[in-house]
Amino acid sequence: MPSGSVLVAGGTGYIGSFTTLALLEAGYKVVVADNLYNSSPEALKRIELICGKKAEFIQLDVTEENGFDKVFEAHPDIDSVIHFAALKAVGESGEKPLDYYLVNVYGTINLLRSMVKHNVTNIVFSSSATVYGDATRFPNMIPIPEDCPLGPTNPYGNTKFAVETAITDVINAQRNNAIKAGNEAEAKKWNGALLRYFNPAGAHPSGIMGEDPQGVPYNLLPLLAQVATGKREKLMVFGDDYASHDGTAIRDYIHILDLADGHLKALNYLRANNPGVRAWNLGTGKGSTVYEMIRAFSAAVGKDQPYEVAPRRAGDVLNLTANPTRANTELGWKAERTLEQACEDLWLWTKNNPQGYRQEPPAELLAQLKK
Amino acid sequence: MPSGSVLVAGGTGYIGSFTTLALLEAGYKVVVADNLYNSSPEALKRIELICGKKAEFIQLDVTEENGFDKVFEAHPDIDSVIHFAALKAVGESGEKPLDYYLVNVYGTINLLRSMVKHNVTNIVFSSSATVYGDATRFPNMIPIPEDCPLGPTNPYGNTKFAVETAITDVINAQRNNAIKAGNEAEAKKWNGALLRYFNPAGAHPSGIMGEDPQGVPYNLLPLLAQVATGKREKLMVFGDDYASHDGTAIRDYIHILDLADGHLKALNYLRANNPGVRAWNLGTGKGSTVYEMIRAFSAAVGKDQPYEVAPRRAGDVLNLTANPTRANTELGWKAERTLEQACEDLWLWTKNNPQGYRQEPPAELLAQLKK
Repeated sequence: MPSGSVLVAGGTGYIGSFTTLALLEAGYKVVVADNLYNSSPEALKRIELICGKKAEFIQLDVTEENGFDKVFEAHPDIDSVIHFAALKAVGESGEKPLDYYLVNVYGTINLLRSMVKHNVTNIVFSSSATVYGDATRFPNMIPIPEDCPLGPTNPYGNTKFAVETAITDVINAQRNNAIKAGNEAEAKKWNGALLRYFNPAGAHPSGIMGEDPQGVPYNLLPLLAQVATGKREKLMVFGDDYASHDGTAIRDYIHILDLADGHLKALNYLRANNPGVRAWNLGTGKGSTVYEMIRAFSAAVGKDQPYEVAPRRAGDVLNLTANPTRANTELGWKAERTLEQACEDLWLWTKNNPQGYRQEPPAELLAQLKK
Repeated sequence: MPSGSVLVAGGTGYIGSFTTLALLEAGYKVVVADNLYNSSPEALKRIELICGKKAEFIQLDVTEENGFDKVFEAHPDIDSVIHFAALKAVGESGEKPLDYYLVNVYGTINLLRSMVKHNVTNIVFSSSATVYGDATRFPNMIPIPEDCPLGPTNPYGNTKFAVETAITDVINAQRNNAIKAGNEAEAKKWNGALLRYFNPAGAHPSGIMGEDPQGVPYNLLPLLAQVATGKREKLMVFGDDYASHDGTAIRDYIHILDLADGHLKALNYLRANNPGVRAWNLGTGKGSTVYEMIRAFSAAVGKDQPYEVAPRRAGDVLNLTANPTRANTELGWKAERTLEQACEDLWLWTKNNPQGYRQEPPAELLAQLKK
């Protein structure tokens, strides 16, 4: 069993909850901190139903001064943080950028300050492929490798970029200051993973755990799921005049279980190899257009899903497909699940939990879980 | 006389105090907010001695929650902010990056939040040529134009870059949201100037106002001034193996009075032309090596100043020389004072005020001022 506890900031959200599950399944002790904005503590109950283990929960906002100090004081065995706590809607970030700078950027500064104060030395950060911006502006950068020059094209991406530099600068300073003081062992303890992920998709194959956005979802698959259940009349396709084979934008959809596993592998790598700060793409390496996704999800549902073409959205780019070679070779991690599986798992979750975590999971799914 | 008051955040520091003087001389009403870290309120007395006008002073830290709200509530006539309040030592930023992210980045988020809340719609930001990083990595980017791709090479530069994106995103959102609401007049009110300056130098020609760093100064000329007065044995030259004609690094030194005038011109431009967010270089366009600066200052003092060559510093680059064409043509601004004048003014200030603002100015200089 791994030593040391892990704090998962934002651990009741979509990716955070699946990563919490992966950590518990791997034997880690987990403390989840979340302000429950756009998420539900019910996610933690589903995790317990699935794996039989429990994460401790603390309600906390990342911008609360000294908030993390209290967590680290109460849990001196925490030596690592996986940091998801952030606002994540590209469109909203253009309308309310101050909220994004406050929560995403200041929230992380606040977290880093407490980590340094309490000697919590590993951080795995929930970054985004958005930091690359439009990689088609360079020759030979699709699929995108980690050393592609960064250049976000919207406020959300700008905040992710700023946080990447903050983590890099703080970890490097902790290392350099320790080395200057002649303490190389201390220097090696400070490590950071910048996980740039592509498009998370799918749900738990049990059908009792998935994405549960409050209000209007922002991403293609949750929107398609609402169309399938009749909550939404049709899907809006933003732009069919991109330079792709069918005119719609290309993204790299990765099953949420693979993505969660990438976080676990990155944390293990930081602890075992002490690389300092390192960026890894978490993607499949395979791009899909919006039209291909509509077809794949329609196949899972067994019914064609209606859509309508609308103009491109500001800040969107043609192609975000990962080159995942670095994560494959260094982390020994690979996206193993197919797009079809992601669509099937999403549909199983959606049709069985039309109100998400605001209703009990169906008895027949719980019965299957126990087998 | 211009309408509306101006808040100068960080207005007792070096560039802030000279800009406050320029604003008062131009007829603006000025409120200065400063936490007096690395600066002295005595600067405001010297300003009054020179121009006969007074800025109101409020002691305030940029990171104080709701601090700016109180200022804007007490001064509803403030419609513009010139924002200098920041930490500024490149070397220190590598050792204490968290302080830089907190003060520079969060401080600005905090300021912008209050500006939006209180409808204070113009901001002139004290950025830095450091945001360009090493422009020699591109062909034809020396001297550096504003559209050179950005790429800071140290934590200080990273914080300036993050603040540039925050200001850009917030001003753009205020404009776009107003336009969506059908209020074009409101949209035009929101403007931002990103002033990327090169190396400020010199002092007021009266000899009673200049740079007064607490503790160890960071920059070439203040260090040379300490050598000239015997406070420091010799100047350390960091790197003589750069690809310049004499091996030392090239910077663009601009007289502090020209730099202050650039802030005034930028503010006037924002108010008159409503450009949205715009970046301007404030530099002379002429680069000088470290050795050339030592010679120029030695000539002003009338005595050769001793130096010693040391290794390059991390994060330093070969050449930061401005292409100031955009500021010249759009702002109608040009650096008019020579390097020789900057050195003479610096020496007049230094030799007459060996303790900076911690002593009264010499009576003979005050007498000359009254003539």
